[in-house]
Amino acid sequence: MLTSYEKAEVELTKNVYEKMESAELARCIEELEREVEHVKAKELKLDMARGKPSPQQVDISRPMLDILSHDSNLFDEGVDCSNYGCFDGIPSARRLAGEFLGVPPEQTIVLGSSSLNIMQSVLIHYWEKGVPGYTPWYKLPHVKWLCPSPGYDRHFGLTQDLGIENIPVRMTDEGPDMDQVEYLCASDESIKGMFCVPKYSNPTGITYSDETVRRLAVMKAAPDFRIVWDNAYAVHDLFDESDQLLNIHEAAAEVGNEDRILEVASTSKITFPGAGIAFFGSSVANVEEVARTLQVGLISANKLNQLMHARFLPDIDAVHEHMKKHAAFLRPRFEAVERKLTEGLSGLGCARWTHPRGGYFVSFDGPRGSAKRIWKLCQEMGVTLTPAGATWPGGEDPNDTNLRIAPTYPSVGELEAALDVLVLATKLVSAQIAQEERAQA
Amino acid sequence: MLTSYEKAEVELTKNVYEKMESAELARCIEELEREVEHVKAKELKLDMARGKPSPQQVDISRPMLDILSHDSNLFDEGVDCSNYGCFDGIPSARRLAGEFLGVPPEQTIVLGSSSLNIMQSVLIHYWEKGVPGYTPWYKLPHVKWLCPSPGYDRHFGLTQDLGIENIPVRMTDEGPDMDQVEYLCASDESIKGMFCVPKYSNPTGITYSDETVRRLAVMKAAPDFRIVWDNAYAVHDLFDESDQLLNIHEAAAEVGNEDRILEVASTSKITFPGAGIAFFGSSVANVEEVARTLQVGLISANKLNQLMHARFLPDIDAVHEHMKKHAAFLRPRFEAVERKLTEGLSGLGCARWTHPRGGYFVSFDGPRGSAKRIWKLCQEMGVTLTPAGATWPGGEDPNDTNLRIAPTYPSVGELEAALDVLVLATKLVSAQIAQEERAQA
Repeated sequence: MLTSYEKAEVELTKNVYEKMESAELARCIEELEREVEHVKAKELKLDMARGKPSPQQVDISRPMLDILSHDSNLFDEGVDCSNYGCFDGIPSARRLAGEFLGVPPEQTIVLGSSSLNIMQSVLIHYWEKGVPGYTPWYKLPHVKWLCPSPGYDRHFGLTQDLGIENIPVRMTDEGPDMDQVEYLCASDESIKGMFCVPKYSNPTGITYSDETVRRLAVMKAAPDFRIVWDNAYAVHDLFDESDQLLNIHEAAAEVGNEDRILEVASTSKITFPGAGIAFFGSSVANVEEVARTLQVGLISANKLNQLMHARFLPDIDAVHEHMKKHAAFLRPRFEAVERKLTEGLSGLGCARWTHPRGGYFVSFDGPRGSAKRIWKLCQEMGVTLTPAGATWPGGEDPNDTNLRIAPTYPSVGELEAALDVLVLATKLVSAQIAQEERAQA
Repeated sequence: MLTSYEKAEVELTKNVYEKMESAELARCIEELEREVEHVKAKELKLDMARGKPSPQQVDISRPMLDILSHDSNLFDEGVDCSNYGCFDGIPSARRLAGEFLGVPPEQTIVLGSSSLNIMQSVLIHYWEKGVPGYTPWYKLPHVKWLCPSPGYDRHFGLTQDLGIENIPVRMTDEGPDMDQVEYLCASDESIKGMFCVPKYSNPTGITYSDETVRRLAVMKAAPDFRIVWDNAYAVHDLFDESDQLLNIHEAAAEVGNEDRILEVASTSKITFPGAGIAFFGSSVANVEEVARTLQVGLISANKLNQLMHARFLPDIDAVHEHMKKHAAFLRPRFEAVERKLTEGLSGLGCARWTHPRGGYFVSFDGPRGSAKRIWKLCQEMGVTLTPAGATWPGGEDPNDTNLRIAPTYPSVGELEAALDVLVLATKLVSAQIAQEERAQA
């Protein structure tokens, strides 16, 4: 697989350093090295590694904490949220989940705070017992999983932990490379599933095209093939005009593939990270089966937290209004990334990056073999980035080009300073690589 | 095993119906049947099945809902509870967990609301990967688990779900029959663990004696044998003078068995059922290993809920003060059970029951072969009890004697009415059994 992947490597046109005369290149490197020493002397301590909101952004949701007090009505449409019971989630939270996920409320389960935890529970369940009617995955000689890359390291960790082989597939501007995905799924029954972050994908920020969604929904695959449809950024638009994602449940149901789709989402990046509520949505049969199995290990989830959320965000319109406050906070940060990278690297031919209209990340590619070196040089200049390779299964970026920029946590000022460092590191490493390649030629 | 268990059956002395002349017994049955018809006509609808607090009891914790509001300090000793991070739990909650569980705070993990969920996660982890250094349980031809019975059906469900064979062991007034437990563990390496509710056990309400705790801590067993020490009722005393439970971690550490003990607890029956915080406590090595594995599927738990709890219940003294309010609410209910059963059944020789000083249940035994019939007759008279057999692995009570009384949810008046029904059903079924046995003799 890696071989086939490598063929689809990031193609950058010949960059400015490769075009330079050797003497000019040497002078340029010397100058960039001086700049690096200058930055090191500043002893910066900046962090662009963390995909989490800043404290000021989190404060947007503080009014929610006033919703429940000692004299509140703790019932939700007949359900006592202060006691055991109602495993599937309270009615108003399931209605909200349905709007989030594009399924009827009865095809949802609302649980604790973590969608990652739901994904893990469902995958372990299939590993242990099998998709209903099929062999448990642990009994199969080999189970493989498709991982659009660059992607989300926490996803890859779930399957890796179960001994499943993660197979990277190329990400395009329209989602995973569907020719590759269809070919693999049609030809290999040991491929049992795939991770997708279909809207404002982590880290590229792109949204799957309608055609990609339709092909995923209808393509030939093993009968117990499952798509983990992690709609983590379903409402995380930066602009009024948002990306539109096709409803995959409807597309799948048209050909009887509705059991293929396991969708999750949570409010972690809407209200409080780690303290939100998480949603699961799928076919009628899947929801019933998953609920039955999860009940073995849970009497009922935190329904008071569900009640607080459902009253704070009574419907999807209220969610969108709330998200505008987040967008107002995040837009200047994403704009700073775009501005700084354009100012510093545009036209040099040694980097490309994405221009997300939502989500939490920008994906950045340098020349082949540069990412680890850029990461290390940034670190030496006091700027922490997500480790190079983290966006690939097993931490192995086959071309060593990709870095994930997480612009949400720092202030705009810190972010600009950090991006200057990234620009400088990219230039120097690109120039050094050009020099080294020339020496080897 | 069942054969050996059956030998240790509930021994009741010859009861009043067995002693009656046949004609007198027939008259007595006729009279009891008339009483039953009289009760049926009332069309009662009473429930003694649910091990949960009543709405009025839950209201005791409502002041906790005032603790967090929009202007609260959301930091706990340097930890921002409103954002990702701090997987192990916030410092003040871990300190509370340590006091609960009898281990240092650094040997605890504080997670979401459910201790059942923690137990399941840890058991699945060992099933999938093995206790560190040993074979994963799923790869073993046979795994068995000891289940002191009567016990908690949700426990039995966890292991049953993993295909583990549950072995009932007899409960005595001092805890599980340690002669039986020691014999089994020393002679059978496929026994990999045991469930214990060591204080105010579900459903008998007894607390394990110091000797029982010591023997469990030091006994010979498979090296990957684990005790799930579910201290669900650690602080759930009904009286000022509470049962005292020996610290099993210390007893186990004395002989190097500290890895054997996996303790859990939660605040579900302290603050809000399903919306509390849950504790895990074990050896340094276990806590580290379990935290590492749980982090695969969880970024961080709901720390705002931890903060709210830790401020409401800052230390174990505050917990005890709070529990006194619960006790004041529950004591009249447990007293009603004791009074009604004594008035109705004392001296008849056809029933015995426990006299808990804490917890949530009373365990009730009728004559051999009576429990299912008593349950059904109560149901016909409008009183729902926990299904007969539910307190045994697989729902199979070998002697069909045991019923679990859950007195917490109904009002005292409802409870008294329900207990009158149970008394009547016990008398009629006991008399019928005596008559049937006579007919067969």
